[in-house]
Amino acid sequence: MASDPSQLQDFCLLPSDAVLVNGFVCKPPMHVTADDFFFSGLDMPDNTSNQLGSKVTLVNVNQIAGLNTLGISLARIDYAPYGLNPPHTHPQATEILTVLEGTLYVGFVTSNTNNGNLLFTKMLKKGDVFVFPEGLIHFQFNYGPTPAVAVAALSSQNPGVITIANAVFGSNPPISDAVLAKAFQVGKDTIKYLQAQFWVANN
Amino acid sequence: MASDPSQLQDFCLLPSDAVLVNGFVCKPPMHVTADDFFFSGLDMPDNTSNQLGSKVTLVNVNQIAGLNTLGISLARIDYAPYGLNPPHTHPQATEILTVLEGTLYVGFVTSNTNNGNLLFTKMLKKGDVFVFPEGLIHFQFNYGPTPAVAVAALSSQNPGVITIANAVFGSNPPISDAVLAKAFQVGKDTIKYLQAQFWVANN
Amino acid sequence: MASDPSQLQDFCLLPSDAVLVNGFVCKPPMHVTADDFFFSGLDMPDNTSNQLGSKVTLVNVNQIAGLNTLGISLARIDYAPYGLNPPHTHPQATEILTVLEGTLYVGFVTSNTNNGNLLFTKMLKKGDVFVFPEGLIHFQFNYGPTPAVAVAALSSQNPGVITIANAVFGSNPPISDAVLAKAFQVGKDTIKYLQAQFWVANN
Amino acid sequence: MASDPSQLQDFCLLPSDAVLVNGFVCKPPMHVTADDFFFSGLDMPDNTSNQLGSKVTLVNVNQIAGLNTLGISLARIDYAPYGLNPPHTHPQATEILTVLEGTLYVGFVTSNTNNGNLLFTKMLKKGDVFVFPEGLIHFQFNYGPTPAVAVAALSSQNPGVITIANAVFGSNPPISDAVLAKAFQVGKDTIKYLQAQFWVANN
Amino acid sequence: MASDPSQLQDFCLLPSDAVLVNGFVCKPPMHVTADDFFFSGLDMPDNTSNQLGSKVTLVNVNQIAGLNTLGISLARIDYAPYGLNPPHTHPQATEILTVLEGTLYVGFVTSNTNNGNLLFTKMLKKGDVFVFPEGLIHFQFNYGPTPAVAVAALSSQNPGVITIANAVFGSNPPISDAVLAKAFQVGKDTIKYLQAQFWVANN
Amino acid sequence: MASDPSQLQDFCLLPSDAVLVNGFVCKPPMHVTADDFFFSGLDMPDNTSNQLGSKVTLVNVNQIAGLNTLGISLARIDYAPYGLNPPHTHPQATEILTVLEGTLYVGFVTSNTNNGNLLFTKMLKKGDVFVFPEGLIHFQFNYGPTPAVAVAALSSQNPGVITIANAVFGSNPPISDAVLAKAFQVGKDTIKYLQAQFWVANN
Repeated sequence: MASDPSQLQDFCLLPSDAVLVNGFVCKPPMHVTADDFFFSGLDMPDNTSNQLGSKVTLVNVNQIAGLNTLGISLARIDYAPYGLNPPHTHPQATEILTVLEGTLYVGFVTSNTNNGNLLFTKMLKKGDVFVFPEGLIHFQFNYGPTPAVAVAALSSQNPGVITIANAVFGSNPPISDAVLAKAFQVGKDTIKYLQAQFWVANN
Repeated sequence: MASDPSQLQDFCLLPSDAVLVNGFVCKPPMHVTADDFFFSGLDMPDNTSNQLGSKVTLVNVNQIAGLNTLGISLARIDYAPYGLNPPHTHPQATEILTVLEGTLYVGFVTSNTNNGNLLFTKMLKKGDVFVFPEGLIHFQFNYGPTPAVAVAALSSQNPGVITIANAVFGSNPPISDAVLAKAFQVGKDTIKYLQAQFWVANN
Repeated sequence: MASDPSQLQDFCLLPSDAVLVNGFVCKPPMHVTADDFFFSGLDMPDNTSNQLGSKVTLVNVNQIAGLNTLGISLARIDYAPYGLNPPHTHPQATEILTVLEGTLYVGFVTSNTNNGNLLFTKMLKKGDVFVFPEGLIHFQFNYGPTPAVAVAALSSQNPGVITIANAVFGSNPPISDAVLAKAFQVGKDTIKYLQAQFWVANN
Repeated sequence: MASDPSQLQDFCLLPSDAVLVNGFVCKPPMHVTADDFFFSGLDMPDNTSNQLGSKVTLVNVNQIAGLNTLGISLARIDYAPYGLNPPHTHPQATEILTVLEGTLYVGFVTSNTNNGNLLFTKMLKKGDVFVFPEGLIHFQFNYGPTPAVAVAALSSQNPGVITIANAVFGSNPPISDAVLAKAFQVGKDTIKYLQAQFWVANN
Repeated sequence: MASDPSQLQDFCLLPSDAVLVNGFVCKPPMHVTADDFFFSGLDMPDNTSNQLGSKVTLVNVNQIAGLNTLGISLARIDYAPYGLNPPHTHPQATEILTVLEGTLYVGFVTSNTNNGNLLFTKMLKKGDVFVFPEGLIHFQFNYGPTPAVAVAALSSQNPGVITIANAVFGSNPPISDAVLAKAFQVGKDTIKYLQAQFWVANN
Repeated sequence: MASDPSQLQDFCLLPSDAVLVNGFVCKPPMHVTADDFFFSGLDMPDNTSNQLGSKVTLVNVNQIAGLNTLGISLARIDYAPYGLNPPHTHPQATEILTVLEGTLYVGFVTSNTNNGNLLFTKMLKKGDVFVFPEGLIHFQFNYGPTPAVAVAALSSQNPGVITIANAVFGSNPPISDAVLAKAFQVGKDTIKYLQAQFWVANN
């Protein structure tokens, strides 16, 4: 992404036994092949039978070693009818999403401003493109009765994902209910109810 | 911060009539004075009588024009007894916090991992320092019966702030309750209850 | 891309009357709407009836003002049967390409090494993904008898394109035939023949 | 600081046996704890009984492993009455200083301009904040009869410090007196006298 | 170059047994000597008896370990009478060239624009300086009957070089003649003829 | 230099009436000519009859508009017999120097280490190259009885220069002698003597 360090050689592949640096170390170039830049199967729908009715298939430096230092990655997102990719942020990447099939209601919220947190939304149909700026909370919802599919490009080789509901109400261990009750200005019973809706992230 | 573009001169001040570029344009150097690098009053407690019992006083490029292009800023945070600086993120800055008075229970949550969203917490006393990595959700809570004060440095001249509760349940306009009900796996009544707790950000 | 300067605010839109800075200046945020992050029609095939049998539809900061400072952009590429997206480079961006329809023979060439300029190639089918590292010469060729379609994401808001044949043999004005004859180790007649094959870029 | 490479993951801790890369390598995330982001004792005065009457306590990536890749660090500075933090530069960081106790006379000098090297100074009292732009020579002097304390944030995980007097007149080995005599336009006797004032840095 | 990650210490030398990271790892500072920042012999003409009549002598991080992380390097270029440094790009560096002896006809070509690929050329004599922007195709030609010499500085510790003729017509293995014939809009016989002019790069 | 923001287009020239941004704004590309990338006369010796016996001729973005955003610049340095380019730093650039004529004694000093400020020196002859890392204090001295000439490349379009003697003892206005007396551990009389040696920078 904009803040990925730039490469100092044509490319830098992951060896099988990587030391952990900021990003990854490189495989000796003579061991590099075209397959190190390749991924297959992005045309295959993934299983969306979960509480959210959506599934994210990541194609980042963990799937394509050749992306190391190159500052970009992809994801395919499948949405069941009425499926949701819930509010989340990518702390280190901007996302540009293209709808391949179906219709999606999408939006993002700005950081705090004098006018509050502004919500920008759009109804997208096949062939529409939308941008979610780096670090802002955003979502996509399939209002329609048919499945939807989108491909998203992200401006980092390894964009983090923070699913808000999971991070706030499902962290490991949980955040103190005293903190959350005051943060959301509700009673601890409501917080415990929210924390009780256990579910896993869709990515 | 780590991803602020670097300066191409000693400093770059804001003129009174700035065109908006990425960051800000510069005031002609001959018009620069020491006061352009100066801010006063960070020793003064701010008013914490709000729902959260906390108040953030920002000292960034909007308060000190000389910070433009320099990649750093400050904030003073006052906490009433049992006051909370609620879960929030800085999309473009890491924060390093120092407790000046009182005790604080602080924490941050990692992005999604195979082990979920890991929570790291610590009880801090006067003179303790803690780091909240860029883009991660974090909070500070004053458990104690006495006021607390902290100073935070942030790795950007203009760190954004996203208060999670405000951005998710208090955006302008509100996020559709259909989206939020599915995102948090609760009924729309619970969402409406959460959205009804109107309050303003503490910064 | 990896080397785009990072944003210093949530986003930075182009005003109608932009001064030219490195990138672009910003539209006042209060004038920003969801449409500033939106583009439509990427599902529509473009006209490939040219000498190459291919056409690139760009979706960068010139089409989506909201991409300014965000370090990413898109392109749709249509290929007629036996159509070619000829050898070219993006001086400031890595490309990650996904095949939406058809099959493509793709490749890139490394910079000079002790083993010469190494060629990496792959035959791609629908759903396959391939990476072309920043600044390297690469191409895509539709060997098949049916049209092909790909979407490419690029790690810059405004990736340059240098089509090698155009830049070397079709520049304006032309490069001296004495230079080109020696560069390619052939006679001036061959150079004149190559320069005579006038055609326009496919983007 | 502005030019620290940005992180490619939430955080990157130092293992006990680090290979030296640009910055540091990472500890496996599963070995990370809250204490990796923690430092304690910044409220404790340090010993200022040295020739300068000042002492700098560093809190950077060497004290807090979690700061690796995050582009920020801290320092506490204690000043005895009439104590001085002498002219120095941070080659890779901007500094923003807050006075916690006492009064300080501070200043920095610009790089060479047509009007010479401009000096900007300010008398600071408790609660005042001042910025020293990256790479410029700056100092703080406690004019008052009482001790002073300041906390400084710096825009790098590992800001270098170059104490001018030490680097120019106390280097190891010494700079040739022929060079220094001509540089300062004085006799070698004056240079030898300056070199003879042996003392150690206050950080 | 502009996009080299910045240093996080004074310098970072290569050890004898380097792990490959993005760039290089560091030698322990106590093993560093002045010779790690030193190269000798740039005043010696190199052998230009090759098909191009030119020779590039590189002085980058591979010759001077101390250049690691510092974002700059050098090259000396010798030109026989009528010698050519053929069209090439540096994918990750801008070049600034100074003529030390003789005269050179130099030029670069812009990326694709609405007016095509614009060629900028200049006849240079001893003491003239010219800039070749990052990633653009450029060349230098010694029209004169006497040898010429230039020194070029490049904005990366390890600027890649892509010699266009070699990369396009001399890659290993060769690019398919079907691809090249369509790319250059000529017959396969012309492509085979161009591919047959085997020669090695001059750097 | 390593921390110059990267370009977002082929090049970005200065218009005659520039607004000051971080760096400079761009001239409309259609007004660009080859002369915008050109400088002449670097082969001409400059006048070294000053107290230092040296003169620096700068070739940066102020002389070559085309260098804007490109992260590199040049300087020619002339040295009279026994001439000195005195201890100075470039706060935002690494320097790589090549000796064209004569011999030079050069050196740089590291930032503060546990072993003090380490001095690295080398005697250079014609054709020798030496690197001065970003932000470190360095100098060149012509020990010989004949003039010397060097060309230096710097990793920024606009490298600042801080001449230590001028910045510390010749600033405008002067730094308080109380500060300098304590900083150098000498009497105010010595400081006044040093401040009295008025002279101008050689660049």
